[in-house]
Amino acid sequence: MRLFEKTIDRTVIYNGKIIGLEVHDVELPNGSTSKRELIYHNGAVAVCAVTPENEVLLVKQFRKPIEKPLLEIPAGKLESGEDRIKAAKRELQEETGYIASDLELITDMYGSPGFSSEKLTIYFANQLTEGEMNLDEDEFVELHKLPIKDVKSILDNKEIADAKTILALQHLLLNYNHFK
Amino acid sequence: MRLFEKTIDRTVIYNGKIIGLEVHDVELPNGSTSKRELIYHNGAVAVCAVTPENEVLLVKQFRKPIEKPLLEIPAGKLESGEDRIKAAKRELQEETGYIASDLELITDMYGSPGFSSEKLTIYFANQLTEGEMNLDEDEFVELHKLPIKDVKSILDNKEIADAKTILALQHLLLNYNHFK
Repeated sequence: MRLFEKTIDRTVIYNGKIIGLEVHDVELPNGSTSKRELIYHNGAVAVCAVTPENEVLLVKQFRKPIEKPLLEIPAGKLESGEDRIKAAKRELQEETGYIASDLELITDMYGSPGFSSEKLTIYFANQLTEGEMNLDEDEFVELHKLPIKDVKSILDNKEIADAKTILALQHLLLNYNHFK
Repeated sequence: MRLFEKTIDRTVIYNGKIIGLEVHDVELPNGSTSKRELIYHNGAVAVCAVTPENEVLLVKQFRKPIEKPLLEIPAGKLESGEDRIKAAKRELQEETGYIASDLELITDMYGSPGFSSEKLTIYFANQLTEGEMNLDEDEFVELHKLPIKDVKSILDNKEIADAKTILALQHLLLNYNHFK
């Protein structure tokens, strides 16, 4: 059986600034049909950045869909066609003031592949220099610096709820033992 | 500065089977206004289940938003008001045939908190008995069994792109050393 669903009809419901919504009628592997509600998104980037003082840079911001603030690694949306590494360096500087000379790929991730196309690329950076923060006009964030030695306990206490941030911190623990 | 955005107007764009879409006009911490495109979702559950043969149960399924199959831990959407543990046991059995007597919380995660309310709860299970698979009529999945000893290399090779699955496999490596 081939795992594939062919679109036989599509309806565009909404075409917004950040997301688009379509409903597709699809043909399933057994020939029957079903509907899929699909969110289209340009993609995003995030950076797990460690300062010379062995601190992970985190930002706290209000997340309207869940009506509360979350603590996250710095991240941002891609503009259409934008280079991911360039966007990641820009977002890191805008949200934290730190400038990364080199980025190392941690992984790509799909956060909600059942309904959303969003692909997020996570990078690691540790060659940082200090510059100036430069937030978008509708962005309000608090900068937090998490000592590497506290990463294990903050995860064990389930204090982080953002998927990309848990993933990045676990990656640090698994791959950068010399930081501990 | 208080990290909060007050909704001053909302427009319901779509109210579907799995997701709803609203656009809110919000008041920002500095008093200016902005728009937020918001996806509302009932939430979901997933299970990282390890067989008596030290294999992690994974399912491969076609994901329409990205037009390709992904390898993931078993997961499913919550019905409105449904108990998360009951839903997690049901999804595990439906997709793999395995029955879990006890589930242990790994973590909650928000996969795309910038635009989506979806909260996913991930559980660990290793007291499994074999039952019968019972897929929904529009669900087509392939069962894969990943030996624990191969988890590190499949992550290092970036062969998994689903956020909840990367997160759960990293958690296994960090917390269940006796499996290695």
